Order: sequence, then C-alpha cells, then structure tokens
Amino acid sequence: MDLERYLAEKTELVNRGLKDLLAGQDEYPRSLHNAMHYSLFAGGKRLRPVLALASCEAVGGRTEDALNAACAFECVHTYSLIHDDLPAIDNDDLRRGRPTCHKAFGEAAAILAGDALLTAAFEIMARTPLDDRERVLRAILDLSRAAGSTGMIGGQMVDIESEGKEVPFPALEYIHIRKTGALILSAVRCGAILGGADEEKLKGLTRYGEAVGLAFQIADDILDVEGSAEALGKATGGDEKKGKATYPALLGLVESKKRAKELVDRALSAIDGFDGSADPLRAVARYIVARNK
Amino acid sequence: MDLERYLAEKTELVNRGLKDLLAGQDEYPRSLHNAMHYSLFAGGKRLRPVLALASCEAVGGRTEDALNAACAFECVHTYSLIHDDLPAIDNDDLRRGRPTCHKAFGEAAAILAGDALLTAAFEIMARTPLDDRERVLRAILDLSRAAGSTGMIGGQMVDIESEGKEVPFPALEYIHIRKTGALILSAVRCGAILGGADEEKLKGLTRYGEAVGLAFQIADDILDVEGSAEALGKATGGDEKKGKATYPALLGLVESKKRAKELVDRALSAIDGFDGSADPLRAVARYIVARNK
Repeated sequence: MDLERYLAEKTELVNRGLKDLLAGQDEYPRSLHNAMHYSLFAGGKRLRPVLALASCEAVGGRTEDALNAACAFECVHTYSLIHDDLPAIDNDDLRRGRPTCHKAFGEAAAILAGDALLTAAFEIMARTPLDDRERVLRAILDLSRAAGSTGMIGGQMVDIESEGKEVPFPALEYIHIRKTGALILSAVRCGAILGGADEEKLKGLTRYGEAVGLAFQIADDILDVEGSAEALGKATGGDEKKGKATYPALLGLVESKKRAKELVDRALSAIDGFDGSADPLRAVARYIVARNK
Repeated sequence: MDLERYLAEKTELVNRGLKDLLAGQDEYPRSLHNAMHYSLFAGGKRLRPVLALASCEAVGGRTEDALNAACAFECVHTYSLIHDDLPAIDNDDLRRGRPTCHKAFGEAAAILAGDALLTAAFEIMARTPLDDRERVLRAILDLSRAAGSTGMIGGQMVDIESEGKEVPFPALEYIHIRKTGALILSAVRCGAILGGADEEKLKGLTRYGEAVGLAFQIADDILDVEGSAEALGKATGGDEKKGKATYPALLGLVESKKRAKELVDRALSAIDGFDGSADPLRAVARYIVARNK
C-alpha cells in the first residue's frame, strides 16, 4: 500500500472535518478562535486522527463513523501541546517551526485556547452522526479516561515532577505510557468502537495501540537526540537540557532503538488475524519508528 | 419550603457523589489529585449542581438521573476558577478564604488540575446511569457548548481583553451572559433534559436559566462592592482595582439591584406553569440575589 498517499488523503479529510466542525467558531471572540486555529492548523502529522480512521476501517466501519472522533483527538492533542509549552510547564518558544501559542497570542489566550480545544473535542464527539448512541458514549468515556488525571495529564504531571531527577525505569515507562501512549491507544480504540468492533477485535487493537503508543514516544526521544532541527521544526537536545527522563538517557540509543522495533513487531502480531483492511494500521506502525519528524 | 435545609441536603448529596465518582483518582499521581480535591472541596456553594438537581425534580425526573451531571458541573466550575485565578489571567491569591490552587500547589499543577477536572466532567457525564442514551449525549453537547469558546471561555476571553478599557453596555452583557450565565443556564437545561422534560418545559426552564444566570453575575458584581470580605472569603473591591467591567461600574448600585430583581421576577414567571415540584427552583432564584456570599 502507498502510505504517503493514505496519510495525505486522511490528513486532507481531517483538516476539512476540523474546519466544518469548528465552523461556528469563526465568530467572536476572534482573538480566542485565532489562537485555537493557529495551533490546530500548524501542520501537525494528524497521527491520532489517522489511527482512529484506520482502526475504524480495519474493523469494517465507515469512515464517517469515526471522523468526528478523529477530529476530536486532534483537538485534544493540540490542547495538550499548547498547555505543555506554557512557561509554567515546559516553557517552549518554538513548535512545528513557529512561535508557540503563548508566544504568538500571550499566556492568557493560550491557556483559554487550550481549554476551549479540550471542550470542543467533547462537543465534536457528542455530535457523531451514528445511530448507535451507546458506541458514541463509550468512545467519549474512553477518550476522557485516556486524557484525564490517570492518563495523559497524570503522565504530564509525573514528567514535570521528574525533571532533573534520577528516574528509575518503571517511572519512565509510567510517564511514556500515559503522557503520549494513552491518547494514541484511545484513538485506536475509539476508531474500533465507533466502527462496531467485536470484543475480540477490540482486544487485538488495544494491544496494537499500547505497542504503537509507547513506540511513538521512544521514537520521539530518539529524534530529540538524533533528529534534524529543520525537519522537526524545533530545537533538538531539549530533553537533555531540561533533564527529562527519556529512553536514550536511561538505556542508550542502541537499546532504545531495539525496544522501539520490538514494539512495532508486537503491534503487528497483535493484528495478525486481521485481513487486508488493516494494512494501513500495519504501515503506520512501521512508519512510527521510521519517521524523521 | 425550607431552602437552607434543601441546599444542605443537595450539597451533601453532591459532595458524596463527587467523592464516589472521583474515587479512582485517589491513586498516583498524588500531587495532581491533591490539587484537584483541594479546589473541589473548598466549601463552594454547589449552586450549579443544586440547579441541575432542582431542575430535574421540577420536570418529574429522578435525582439519580441528574446526579452525575450535577457533579460534572461542579468540576467544570472549579476548573474555571483554578484557571481564572492563574497569574496570567486574574492573578488572585485567595479563593474561598484559602490560597488559590496555584499558590498552594504551584502553577504547573494548577494548570493540569484544571485540565483534569474539565476532562473528569465529561467522564462523569458519560457514566450517567440512564437507559435513554440520547438524553445523556444531548446533555454532554449542551455542557460542551456552554463551557466552550462561544460560551464560558469566550466570555472569559472578552472579560480579560476589556480590563481597564471603557466597555459599552452590550459588551458587558456579552461577558456576563457567557462568563457566568452560560454554565448556570446549562446546569438548569441538563437537569431538565436528563429528567425527561418535554420541549415546552425545557423552553420555560431555558428562560428561567438565562434570567438566574445573569442575575447571579450582577449579584456577584454588587457583592464585590458591598459584600463582607469575611463572608466572601476573598478581598472585595477587586473588580474596581482590576478595571473590570461590572454592572455597578456602568449602571450604579441602585440600577444594578433593580435589574437583578427584575431578572428574578422574569425567572419566576418563566416557570409560572410548573407545579409545586418547581418550588426549589423558585426559592433558589430568590436566594441568588439575596445571598451574602
């Protein structure tokens, strides 16, 4: 399959979806909506939406069943980046090659734009045009748990508290699985839930999502050491400077790469029994550790 | 009816509900959950939950149908206070007689605790144990719109941008209706939706909610001028110091009080056709402008 083309098509679909679904937000107050759109349309990879759509496809669902969820995951991801970049948290000036939201719009607008994007995610989820309302509620519940205090935000909190400290390996895994992995896993799960997966397929996709979620963060850690600042759109070496707990810092680059590859294998074997409609998921799993940004 | 007793009973119910619904959050990371609980159990009036429960009752619904929503509204309200108090926004040190969340736990923890409470609100809503799933989704949609960029957050944004500027009356109304009114209105509406209100009753309660929502913020403005710092648990006169747009500043105290009373009358007449089960809503409408904190 042609992954590049698949990614381009789905990205286009998601960008159009986001514009449609947030259309009412072209209104007043402009400053707030400008800040939201600035960060939302900054050229992100749309990985989480693609995973939601590909997962829905892999269980035989229709694209439109998971499109709202796909857009909602991008809103949650973008909000988390805006808040993480704030001076009180990671204090980053650059994101995707442009000034971060608070650098461009001020801190107050950035806090509120993040809040509004998180809120919009749930609005968009609730507007899913699917007759089976139970599936929609189940997806909302999955997303809220993944993004909440024992998921993404919990991981972010422990990440901050661990800065500059010696972090044992289990704590590093805790951070990675929650800070990044939880939302990626939930995107995969929600696509499957909305697409009407049976429990066995959902179980397989859950194992797939856990593996690619952790692999993605390990690859991110590696890119922060080895990647090109130009391709990434931000300075590399930031993790080491901030004393962040990372896989390369704890295990070294060679061992980190080995683990990332093992996780991709684990992801692939978790969806072994799926037919060709899961090929996009297979290609994305390989891409996650091969990407350069 | 004995309003004091009614408020005490419902507050107890909501506090127990919040503890039960957030029980899984007693876990790691403790610092994050401590910050969330610190602000959530700081002795708030629980006005939004009480309105949701009273509204459900007024349309013949069962308390348990609206209890999750009641708790969710308190989570959203608390998150909005935590973020509003941040240095980059209102920069307040004191709330309900205690240090604000960021003063007690640091800015990063306060930002994340607010994010986590907003996320928890949607988790709690999605867990509503009601067979009619469409009602639950309709309530989630109502809450998300009320709390979003054209509701509460929009009002907050315009409020910040208006500080120290001359604000025309329509802009002041825009701020008040959204910053405070939207969430109060949605609490009333969600209680009714979950309680199974027909469209006519929902329409009446919407007019009720609009009126008490605006009346509440006008009363707040008045308390900031005339109230006792001891009863309020925070310094008074803050609005004037910050150059905030308020009803007393634009219309004077006498006219502001007249408007607040007119809104209470409008709220009462909107639910004129309801029977005695709407008495708690009637008592709360009167209390909103008569309270001293």
